Amino acid sequence: MSVRRAVADDAGVVAQLLYDFNQEFNESTPPVAELATRIAYLLGGKDTMILLVGDNPDGLAVLRFRDAIWTANLECYLAELYVTPTRRGNGLGRTLMEAALEEARARGAATMEIGVDEPDLIARRLYESLGFSNRASGHDGPLMYVYELDL
Amino acid sequence: MSVRRAVADDAGVVAQLLYDFNQEFNESTPPVAELATRIAYLLGGKDTMILLVGDNPDGLAVLRFRDAIWTANLECYLAELYVTPTRRGNGLGRTLMEAALEEARARGAATMEIGVDEPDLIARRLYESLGFSNRASGHDGPLMYVYELDL
Repeated sequence: MSVRRAVADDAGVVAQLLYDFNQEFNESTPPVAELATRIAYLLGGKDTMILLVGDNPDGLAVLRFRDAIWTANLECYLAELYVTPTRRGNGLGRTLMEAALEEARARGAATMEIGVDEPDLIARRLYESLGFSNRASGHDGPLMYVYELDL
Repeated sequence: MSVRRAVADDAGVVAQLLYDFNQEFNESTPPVAELATRIAYLLGGKDTMILLVGDNPDGLAVLRFRDAIWTANLECYLAELYVTPTRRGNGLGRTLMEAALEEARARGAATMEIGVDEPDLIARRLYESLGFSNRASGHDGPLMYVYELDL
C-alpha cells in the first residue's frame, strides 16, 4: 500500500476526495473546482502536506505544520483523514497515519494534534492504537475539548 | 483596561508570563531567557499575535493564524490565555478574549479554535459566554475532543 506526497498536479484529486468527504457527512462544501484552487494554493505554501494512498487515490491525510511555542520544534495538526467508503476496512487509514507520523517526525515536529468528534469511534480507536490520547499529560490527565466559534 | 499587541521588545515580559503560567500549573517549562528567544522569533514571523493586558502587563493571549482549508479565509487558534493570579476576577481574561476576537476578525479569520481541559471550568464558562462551543455544528453536534501524541 503505497503512500505518496501530493504535488500541485494532484490538487484536483485531493479536492475530489475532500468534496466526497463532506458530501458523505452532510457538511456543506465548496464545489470541487473551488477546492482544487484552494488546495493548489496550500500545496504551494510551506505549512501544508497532503498524503495520498492507493491507486485512484483512495484516501488522504492533510497535515498542517507551524512553529511550536514551548520548544524550537514544529507542531503538527492532522486536519483531515479520509478513506473512500468502498476501500475501507483494508488498513488504508492506518497506513496513512503511520506515514503521517513518519513525515511529521522527519520534518521535525514534536507533537501531533487531532480534533475528533466523540461518536467517531473508528477514528478514535485508530488514533488510540497509535498512542494518541484525549487526556492531557499522556493518559492520566483530564479530557481535552476543542472549543470553536465562527467569527 | 487597555489591550495592546506585543512587539519584539515585549519578548521578555511575554516569556515571564508564560513561565509563570507553566509554574503555576506544575508544567515543565523552558527558562525565561530561552522562552524570550523563542517568543522574539515567533513575533518576527507572520502567524503569531500576542495581546497584553494591564500595566505590568497582567495577562496575555497568544493567537496563531494560518490559511483555512475549506475557505479562502484564515483560521485562528488561541494557543494560550493567562492572567496573573493576583489580578484575576477583574475581567482581564474577558477583555483579552474580546480583543482577540476583534483582532482575529480584523485579520480575516473565519473561525477560532481553543483546546481546553475538562476541569478548567472558569475558562470554559468564559469561552461559552462568548459563543464558543465544544460541540460540532454549533451547539447541537457531538462533543469534540483533542487527541495528542508526542512524536
